[in-house]
Amino acid sequence: MGTQRFAGSAEDADLRRGDSLAREIFSDVANKWALLIIEALGAGTLRFSELRAEVEGISHKMLTQNLRMLERNGLLDRKVHPTVPPRVEYTLTEAGQGLRATVDGMCDWTHRYLGHIEAARSRFEV
Amino acid sequence: MGTQRFAGSAEDADLRRGDSLAREIFSDVANKWALLIIEALGAGTLRFSELRAEVEGISHKMLTQNLRMLERNGLLDRKVHPTVPPRVEYTLTEAGQGLRATVDGMCDWTHRYLGHIEAARSRFEV
Repeated sequence: MGTQRFAGSAEDADLRRGDSLAREIFSDVANKWALLIIEALGAGTLRFSELRAEVEGISHKMLTQNLRMLERNGLLDRKVHPTVPPRVEYTLTEAGQGLRATVDGMCDWTHRYLGHIEAARSRFEV
Repeated sequence: MGTQRFAGSAEDADLRRGDSLAREIFSDVANKWALLIIEALGAGTLRFSELRAEVEGISHKMLTQNLRMLERNGLLDRKVHPTVPPRVEYTLTEAGQGLRATVDGMCDWTHRYLGHIEAARSRFEV
């Protein structure tokens, strides 16, 4: 997969100004709950209750909304098993796995700059 | 810079469950406005009004709040030039540039999967 140019590139300009679908998708997924769900599913298929336990602090409503949004955008598959009660499982699609790679990068960044950010905060609060 | 392990790694688990500072930082920056501001500043220093023009749709209040949050976390430098009226400029720090690389990945992903997502949406809405 070729790497696109970014600095001042047409793609950047599209995303900020022009391409409304790209902007809409970016707006959908660029929120912490969606990204934490994607990350949790990176390890494999999970049920709703397992996801809720993995993504600490998420409400039932937020989890439902974000799962629906991610399914609608083709980032995860939702499978209902006809048991009693029904078992519902969520799995990342290939597109979802692609996004997960970028979330990994963001987690990596967070841990790499933890000390830097902590120091900046103490300076800022003086 | 070494790449950390991700799938089911301690770092992932920390971010979801344990390490409250990492979670807090991730929650701060994982929002579309913060990420679009980071991306806009990737091309270089910008003034408030220039940022507002670059990040289409952002309100004055949202831009102010996010710039303050990014400055507090040490992701950008705010410089006030003592002109009349004062000129205020924003520049990414090294940590901010690091985050920008992950935002680039997310923009890249958005464009790569645009067709896939569009198709998923039409199926979902049938």
